[in-house]
Amino acid sequence: MSEGSEDGYRERIRERLIGVAEGLVSREGLGALQARRVAQDADCSIGTVYNIFGDIHGLILETNARTLADLGRHQTAAARRAAEADLTTRLTTLAIAYLDFATLNQRRWRAVFEHRLPDTKTFPEAHREDRRTLLALIEAQLESEIGETRLREDLAFALFAAVHGIVLLSLDAKIAPFDPAQCERRLRLVIARTVADGSSGKSAKI
Amino acid sequence: MSEGSEDGYRERIRERLIGVAEGLVSREGLGALQARRVAQDADCSIGTVYNIFGDIHGLILETNARTLADLGRHQTAAARRAAEADLTTRLTTLAIAYLDFATLNQRRWRAVFEHRLPDTKTFPEAHREDRRTLLALIEAQLESEIGETRLREDLAFALFAAVHGIVLLSLDAKIAPFDPAQCERRLRLVIARTVADGSSGKSAKI
Repeated sequence: MSEGSEDGYRERIRERLIGVAEGLVSREGLGALQARRVAQDADCSIGTVYNIFGDIHGLILETNARTLADLGRHQTAAARRAAEADLTTRLTTLAIAYLDFATLNQRRWRAVFEHRLPDTKTFPEAHREDRRTLLALIEAQLESEIGETRLREDLAFALFAAVHGIVLLSLDAKIAPFDPAQCERRLRLVIARTVADGSSGKSAKI
Repeated sequence: MSEGSEDGYRERIRERLIGVAEGLVSREGLGALQARRVAQDADCSIGTVYNIFGDIHGLILETNARTLADLGRHQTAAARRAAEADLTTRLTTLAIAYLDFATLNQRRWRAVFEHRLPDTKTFPEAHREDRRTLLALIEAQLESEIGETRLREDLAFALFAAVHGIVLLSLDAKIAPFDPAQCERRLRLVIARTVADGSSGKSAKI
């Protein structure tokens, strides 16, 4: 067997394991992503899982990277559709698309944010990039309106986190049962007010 | 033994179990809150834990209720300190206090939001109230400025969720290492822009 085909074999196993992990998370949530179950469903040994990913966190990070890539494509498509609209509309389109993705892929989406590395480990730089891509898309919307880099970065982060927080707490349904129309109204409200240009979203009283 | 003292005994065991559960969550996070460990540390049987709380979720809900009560007192104290200030300052004071509480009680605070009931269970109404108390405090700040109830409720929820999202994603340190000054700047930014009354926080360009 040549080195090439050994690499190919390893790559095929790696893909199969990530595919199995994605399926487990989609059906049962992050808690189901255990090396034993992944190995069993992929018909290989637990040793193979650890050999390829180091530990279970390595596999979780790769699985979450797939979800982030899907979310990134979904957000990019939304940005493209709204490219000609004004800033408030473009950001609102991204926010509503985020709500849609989170609702339709709830377990995978939650896994991206629920996963915590042990306190002894730092979040790997390569995986930070996947998240920065989402921010970069919002920063790009703000580019023409906010010249100062730090303010643009701060506002992009604040908007992303605000949308994430509203979607998360709405879907959690711990304050009230989930109401999609109400959630959408609240997303529109915070965006219209945050980037209000005087023409939209500001009430007269505040 | 009279019924009164049996009740008293049950109440003392209940308090002891919640205390043990709080300690486990504080030191190790929600994942450590297992019936077996709580029973062991409280020197009672697992059956007693289930007898008092129904299942582990019952104990988690009670433990989280303590954290929410602490958080509520902390937020109320912050609101009292800022009572004479303008709206932006009052809301910013609450947001910074929220960041402080989350930073200092990170594992207990995370447990409040990480805990998920099984899909077959609805979040109990009594425990929704604890969370509504936090929203009510923000609504009270908005009362004099926003007369319309639905808008006031929407804005209070959106502000709370935005602050929660910014604190959560900053502390997660998955996009960049946690930087308290940066997080505080972003909290101030989103609040100043959301409730801007023309006098503060709005940039000239947007």
